[in-house]
Amino acid sequence: MKSEGALNPIRWEEDHLVLIDQRKLPLTESYEKITTLEQCHDAIKVMVVRGAPCIGFTAIFGMALFAKNESQIDDTKLKIAAAFLKSARPTAVNLAFEVDRCVDLILSDPKSAFDRLVSFGQEQMEKAYHENLSMAETGLKELTARYGDKKLRLMTHCNTGHLACGCLGTALGVISHSFKKGAVEKVWVDETRPYLQGTRLSSFELWKESIPHQVVVEGAASELMRQGLVDAVFVGADRIVKNGDTANKVGTATLAITAKNYGVPFYVIAPTSSFDMASSCGEEIEIEMRPEEEVLSIQGVRLAAEGVSAYNPSFDITKSEFITGIISEKGIAKGNYVEEIEKFFR
Amino acid sequence: MKSEGALNPIRWEEDHLVLIDQRKLPLTESYEKITTLEQCHDAIKVMVVRGAPCIGFTAIFGMALFAKNESQIDDTKLKIAAAFLKSARPTAVNLAFEVDRCVDLILSDPKSAFDRLVSFGQEQMEKAYHENLSMAETGLKELTARYGDKKLRLMTHCNTGHLACGCLGTALGVISHSFKKGAVEKVWVDETRPYLQGTRLSSFELWKESIPHQVVVEGAASELMRQGLVDAVFVGADRIVKNGDTANKVGTATLAITAKNYGVPFYVIAPTSSFDMASSCGEEIEIEMRPEEEVLSIQGVRLAAEGVSAYNPSFDITKSEFITGIISEKGIAKGNYVEEIEKFFR
Repeated sequence: MKSEGALNPIRWEEDHLVLIDQRKLPLTESYEKITTLEQCHDAIKVMVVRGAPCIGFTAIFGMALFAKNESQIDDTKLKIAAAFLKSARPTAVNLAFEVDRCVDLILSDPKSAFDRLVSFGQEQMEKAYHENLSMAETGLKELTARYGDKKLRLMTHCNTGHLACGCLGTALGVISHSFKKGAVEKVWVDETRPYLQGTRLSSFELWKESIPHQVVVEGAASELMRQGLVDAVFVGADRIVKNGDTANKVGTATLAITAKNYGVPFYVIAPTSSFDMASSCGEEIEIEMRPEEEVLSIQGVRLAAEGVSAYNPSFDITKSEFITGIISEKGIAKGNYVEEIEKFFR
Repeated sequence: MKSEGALNPIRWEEDHLVLIDQRKLPLTESYEKITTLEQCHDAIKVMVVRGAPCIGFTAIFGMALFAKNESQIDDTKLKIAAAFLKSARPTAVNLAFEVDRCVDLILSDPKSAFDRLVSFGQEQMEKAYHENLSMAETGLKELTARYGDKKLRLMTHCNTGHLACGCLGTALGVISHSFKKGAVEKVWVDETRPYLQGTRLSSFELWKESIPHQVVVEGAASELMRQGLVDAVFVGADRIVKNGDTANKVGTATLAITAKNYGVPFYVIAPTSSFDMASSCGEEIEIEMRPEEEVLSIQGVRLAAEGVSAYNPSFDITKSEFITGIISEKGIAKGNYVEEIEKFFR
């Protein structure tokens, strides 16, 4: 497993999983030892681990631990386990996708399931690295075609780097790859409320890689673009449907609408495992609601008066008309998304 | 001075000014006694007091304290004092406006200046209440014309109520007045990063007035509007120029662009003292930069890794094409803003 940053958010060790606790970053670097399916579910739900790809890997190792810990696996137990694990984050399409693949793998031969699932998880992580590198190359090619040799100011939302992906990353992978190739002047990291993945995680990763960057509040997007300080925006995706509509961390759509208004190109970067070809448009995607306390407190410090409540949708839907291009490991889709995305799956 | 909430953010007591420390709300209610011009400057700069109208009142009482504390006022001292006070928040047009009016008042008769400035400050606060009520009535009339008897879901940004205005308020004044008249179902309060005026102050005021509301992160604006949960947005202004372009708390423009995309009407509410008729468009407005620590820490808790920096513009410019109407105490401007705003000043 190639890792270019110092942090390794997820690794398998002999008979258990080790996850870095992303809730405590960047101030504390601590690890959780995960030995059961229940612990995997909880780690996903409370966001010890986050980012669609890492959630997927955790799910595979979670099913491996289920196979290891059950003396006899029957259909009912397996169904319950799968549904339980999927329920940890309902919007992330690849969580359900990986769990379903694991169920098939277990059913085909329950006795050898543990070993095969562990190998499968490790293969998936290796595969993700190569996919991410391919997406990063496509992203840089797109930037070069548009801007030539200009040193670019790129903006990103949420965290889509090593910590989310276990390796290079999707949107942040494009950015760090482009920086290594000399194409990046600076990165704008929006803080990404309420969970502050930008402030806590993306800026931490960029800082570790010595990539020049500054954090901004999400509301500053218009002002940065009005002043001509943003050349392109890159974000990841939790789910992309057939017409290109994209579910991603709340704030993505607001940013995309603002970018389009200023003529700033807006790219979504995600592997084909994050595509949901069973849904035709964004209206069909369920939006996960998260606890209001995430909005009303920060790091345990209460911000609002007692009695005040919050509404906390964790994702939003960006309509594909606001997206300049969608990049997967299969290439870039633009324009007629229904046709172009369909090509990824031929 | 009429105050309809329990909190009184600013009051004059015999020979000194008393300000509630808005940085500590809503968890702590503490007051600062202000006896010098320097203390006024600092209270404005560090945001003990905030909101364009309250900043204006504080400036008047600051100049009164200057007049009181100086045994002999000469032109040079007066110029220095005025420039010093104006420098506390460069974007707020009515800070400079009130300071200039005070300078004229002092020059006309330095000896009686203290008493006259105190009276002038108190008159301005009384006048503001009547202006705010007039704007609130115009806002409600506009909503009724558009929506009839429908109970509305209104959204607001930053804090523009009692705490900002010393009385009813501008945008929040429209909302609380409309609620009292039975026209409001619920209020969406965006948290308003980095200073959290929404979470800390607006929700606190709404809660004190028992107006149903929920806090949301700013990035949720698109998702709320996509789901059809917002009927109109009301914001205040720090400066409105001749063509209707508006400087207001960072995040305003991002919200306005999003609202226009979803066809949600977006209103700016500000008294004519916040209009800058010497500037013709938004490009001429200087944007105040604030300390990066406001973004990287919350309530003294560091969020980002050491070494990470932030870019923190305190305001942004909303182009008038994104504004459905601008309401002052003189009425509502719509459509051709250059002409309509000019009418406010005839």
